[in-house]
Amino acid sequence: MKNEYQECLDACLACMEACNICFDACLNEEDVKMMANCIRLDRVCADTCSLAAKAIQSDSPFKEEICRLCAEICAACGEECNKHSHEHCQMCADACFRCAEACRRMITA
Amino acid sequence: MKNEYQECLDACLACMEACNICFDACLNEEDVKMMANCIRLDRVCADTCSLAAKAIQSDSPFKEEICRLCAEICAACGEECNKHSHEHCQMCADACFRCAEACRRMITA
Amino acid sequence: MKNEYQECLDACLACMEACNICFDACLNEEDVKMMANCIRLDRVCADTCSLAAKAIQSDSPFKEEICRLCAEICAACGEECNKHSHEHCQMCADACFRCAEACRRMITA
Amino acid sequence: MKNEYQECLDACLACMEACNICFDACLNEEDVKMMANCIRLDRVCADTCSLAAKAIQSDSPFKEEICRLCAEICAACGEECNKHSHEHCQMCADACFRCAEACRRMITA
Repeated sequence: MKNEYQECLDACLACMEACNICFDACLNEEDVKMMANCIRLDRVCADTCSLAAKAIQSDSPFKEEICRLCAEICAACGEECNKHSHEHCQMCADACFRCAEACRRMITA
Repeated sequence: MKNEYQECLDACLACMEACNICFDACLNEEDVKMMANCIRLDRVCADTCSLAAKAIQSDSPFKEEICRLCAEICAACGEECNKHSHEHCQMCADACFRCAEACRRMITA
Repeated sequence: MKNEYQECLDACLACMEACNICFDACLNEEDVKMMANCIRLDRVCADTCSLAAKAIQSDSPFKEEICRLCAEICAACGEECNKHSHEHCQMCADACFRCAEACRRMITA
Repeated sequence: MKNEYQECLDACLACMEACNICFDACLNEEDVKMMANCIRLDRVCADTCSLAAKAIQSDSPFKEEICRLCAEICAACGEECNKHSHEHCQMCADACFRCAEACRRMITA
C-alpha cells in the first residue's frame, strides 16, 4: 500500500473511534441538548470513516471519491466538536482534523 | 425468495426507516436527555436492520444468525420507544415489534 | 419529507436491493472471473446507497453530499452491469441509473 | 475500557482489514470461481467486525450480543479461508480465528 493510503487508513480508523467514543460520551453528558449536533455529526462521521476504511482496504475503485466526502464531513464534525470543551469533544476534533487532512493528501497523492 | 424472507426483509427496511426517523426526531425534542437511551438504541437497531436486509438480499450464509440478533435488538429498542408518548417513538416501537416478530418467523421457517 | 427526498430514498433502497441481489447472482455464475468488477462495484454501490438512505431518513446535514457521491458510484456500477446480458445485471443497471438520476434531482431540488 | 474490550476491539479491526484485503485479492485471483465462498464470507465478516467495533467503541448495550454473532461468522470465515493456500487467505484465516477467540473472551469476561 502507498504511504498516503496507509496514513489515510490509520487516520480514518482513529477518527471512527474518536467519533464513536464522543457519540457515547455526549449521550452521557448532563446537558445532552447542547450536544445534539455533535451526536448527529459523530454518527455520520464515524460511519463515513468506516466506509472509507473499507474502500481503502478493499482497494475500491471509488476510494478517492469516498475520501473526498470523508474529508468534508470530518472538517464539519471537527468544527462542531471544537465548540465544546469536554475532553472527548477536543480529542474528537483533533482526530477529525487529522483525518480530513490525511484524506486530502491521499486524494492528491 | 421465500415468503418469510420477503416479509422479514420488508420489516427490516421499515424498522430501519422508523429508527432513523426516531433518532433524528429525538435529537430535535425539547428534552433530549430523556431520549438518550432511545437515541442509542435507534442507532444500533437501524444499523442491525440494515445489515440484516443486506444479508437477506445477498443470500448470505449467515442471514438467520443476523436476523436472530436483529430480533433481540428490535425487541429492546421497541420496549424503550414504547416508554415515550412521542408519535415518532410510538411508530418506531410498532416497527420494532413487527420486525422482531418477522425475524423470528424467518428463522423458524 | 419533500418529494425529491422521498423519490431519492426509494431509488436508493431499490438500488441497494438490486446491487445485493446482483452481487449474490454474480458469485453463482459459471464464469465468476468475468463478473469480478461487477461484484466489486455491486458491493460499494449497495453500501453507499445504504449510507445515503440512512442520511435521508435521519435528515443528516450531509445528505446532499452523500447523494452526490452515490450518484457517481451508481453511474459507474450501472455502466459495468450494462456490459453483461444476465438478467440480474440488466435489472441492476436499471436500478443504478434510476438512483443516479434521483440523487442528482434531489441535490438540485 | 476493560482489557477484554480493548483486545476484542483490536481483533475486530484487524479481522475487518484482513477480510477486506482478502475480498479484493480473491477477486484478482486467476480462478475467481474457486474463491466465491471466500468472497461472500469476507464481505459479511468484514461488515460484522465493523459493526462490532462500532458497538464496543460507542459502548452499545448490545456489544456482547453483536460479538457473539461476530465470533460465529469469524469462525466460519476462518474455516473457509483456511482451505486456500493463498497468502491473503492464510492471513485472513489467522485474523478470523483470533477475532473469534477475542469475541468469546470478551463475552465471558
